[in-house]
Amino acid sequence: MRTALCDTLGIEYPLVGFTPSEHVAAAISKAGGLGVLGCVRFNDAAELDSVLDWMDANTGGRPYGVDIVMPSTIPTEGSSTDLTEMIPPEHRAFVDRTLADLGVPDLPDGTDERAGVLGWLHSVARAHVEVALRHPIALIANALGSPPVDVIEQAHDAGVPVAALAGKAEHAARHVDNGVDLVVAQGYEAGGHTGEIASMVLLPEIVDAVGERAPVLAAGGIGSGRQVAAALALGASGAWTGSVWLATQEYRQTMAGSEAMQQALLDAGSADTRRTRIYTGKPARLLKTRWTEAWSEPGAPEPLPMPLQNLLVSHAHQRLHAAQDPSVVSMPVGQIVGRMRSVRPVAEVVAEFVREYEETLVRLDKTRKS
Amino acid sequence: MRTALCDTLGIEYPLVGFTPSEHVAAAISKAGGLGVLGCVRFNDAAELDSVLDWMDANTGGRPYGVDIVMPSTIPTEGSSTDLTEMIPPEHRAFVDRTLADLGVPDLPDGTDERAGVLGWLHSVARAHVEVALRHPIALIANALGSPPVDVIEQAHDAGVPVAALAGKAEHAARHVDNGVDLVVAQGYEAGGHTGEIASMVLLPEIVDAVGERAPVLAAGGIGSGRQVAAALALGASGAWTGSVWLATQEYRQTMAGSEAMQQALLDAGSADTRRTRIYTGKPARLLKTRWTEAWSEPGAPEPLPMPLQNLLVSHAHQRLHAAQDPSVVSMPVGQIVGRMRSVRPVAEVVAEFVREYEETLVRLDKTRKS
Repeated sequence: MRTALCDTLGIEYPLVGFTPSEHVAAAISKAGGLGVLGCVRFNDAAELDSVLDWMDANTGGRPYGVDIVMPSTIPTEGSSTDLTEMIPPEHRAFVDRTLADLGVPDLPDGTDERAGVLGWLHSVARAHVEVALRHPIALIANALGSPPVDVIEQAHDAGVPVAALAGKAEHAARHVDNGVDLVVAQGYEAGGHTGEIASMVLLPEIVDAVGERAPVLAAGGIGSGRQVAAALALGASGAWTGSVWLATQEYRQTMAGSEAMQQALLDAGSADTRRTRIYTGKPARLLKTRWTEAWSEPGAPEPLPMPLQNLLVSHAHQRLHAAQDPSVVSMPVGQIVGRMRSVRPVAEVVAEFVREYEETLVRLDKTRKS
Repeated sequence: MRTALCDTLGIEYPLVGFTPSEHVAAAISKAGGLGVLGCVRFNDAAELDSVLDWMDANTGGRPYGVDIVMPSTIPTEGSSTDLTEMIPPEHRAFVDRTLADLGVPDLPDGTDERAGVLGWLHSVARAHVEVALRHPIALIANALGSPPVDVIEQAHDAGVPVAALAGKAEHAARHVDNGVDLVVAQGYEAGGHTGEIASMVLLPEIVDAVGERAPVLAAGGIGSGRQVAAALALGASGAWTGSVWLATQEYRQTMAGSEAMQQALLDAGSADTRRTRIYTGKPARLLKTRWTEAWSEPGAPEPLPMPLQNLLVSHAHQRLHAAQDPSVVSMPVGQIVGRMRSVRPVAEVVAEFVREYEETLVRLDKTRKS
């Protein structure tokens, strides 16, 4: 399981793992892949800085990357207070009523209620980039397409390649025109922000659209070595994975109280996700729970645009998380959730990816012209 | 490009091609795949009988199959007249108004208006099976899951294996429990009736669910050798293809006046499809045109259940076809429509599948552990 991308990024396997957990990211890198730390949960660049210090000390000198969320069209900007005033009262009332209906308790007194909100703002994402570039990162990925051109230039000046997600071939070509070095082809089956074209179709389309100009990582539906082999057959230079790392032991080290979420993932089948705008205002695939379904009922409001929807639901997300009830989890995850059967160490997951990949190639050998 | 399925079915390549055109089906079989003739367009079993006589004389002794549409839960049955009375007048009015708005002319006097309606009825599908079993067919496929158990037994008594489509792992397992010999795993990206789980995730799930009990064909998103290689990497024993054969020269030999439809396919991108219930009453992916979009506008009625929706739109389909206007085509097609660039002979398409498959395996060789 090796492609030219391994040499470019200095990794052993062309397996990139996105995760909000520094413990997971470090473990992926140490196991031979590229751990990519999601930065959106950091309100404060100083907090990111100290976590990256920890990464520098705990990846055994292996490369790692960071993931920011920087829409190419700049959304409504402003202080948290300004933006909060733009949220219609009926939306707030719906959220409050729904949480009550679902039996979700209030937060305990003294909880920091700002967590995980401001990372979605452009100004905060820019501060994340500045901080990240002071660390020996191997990649900056933008989960929402091309970052602004000056951010790409800033990364290139620091010798850091830039990756961008694309759900359509024309977006991928535009990213490369903008200077992006690596395209992440995000299929319909993926968790988080995703389009409507499935990986089987999207991936060769994007590979052909960008040609020799940039390698392509396959994202969406990849949680096993067979799926990496399929992605490489379709022309990808590697795999971008995310959901699969949620069901790891290391995830719990960073993310306190994730037991209910992990239980919900283990219980879910591949049909138990929903693509909806309720998480961020843009279509994203989430685990289907009583929370997501409440937003599909008659009388539920239309989700707000980004970043207002983030602000609207951020407090609800804290309460849903604290409730420790698998039936009301709010979590982006792809259709491969149906394959999650146990919570395992990261190194075991990586080793299984590699073993199954090599087995798949042996199996394919038997299909050659005799 | 060879699997054990080739020996089972007596074919050269594990490439099954579904098509309503006997000219396409025969050409696929002659080129080394398995042509599967869709029977739903035949109102009359005698008409199917004579077309199968033609197939017997024109496939050069190569195997071919037939595809019926037999819902496992028997829908409303009855004469065309009885059923017609169950269609609400407001639905009829919407169809009439929409055709007028879209500038679709009336049919010329003397057109047979019954065409392509009755094949969706259970009684007619049973007559198709009886007729087909009098021919040397190699496969009966049911595009809507398990056929009734007595139909499976009837096929087995004649030594003919039965294939059934599945969009979920639990459906696939149930088909095999019912005696089905071959499962067609139909992913979200497929044309026609399709579920919500994409091939990258669905295929290994179904392969694991049925295990050694039945081989699995991958359907949905497959129009090239790279995609066949991906399907086989995911564990399939072969590929089930459909959309790709619509853009062939042979298609025109059976289907008079298909130029506008083929032009619409060549013009479309992979995002230009819509999964909707307007074609049959069950969710099916169609080319996105002014006709499909009219059904998504505010005030459009909910589609009726099968087979009433077929009856409601059958006359409209004849008018839309006769209009020869690419912007109002009503045609099931998968997301791979975005790859269609020209109308080619079937043999050329098959040869390209095989060539690209072998090239893909050579490319994958370079990713092995060194």
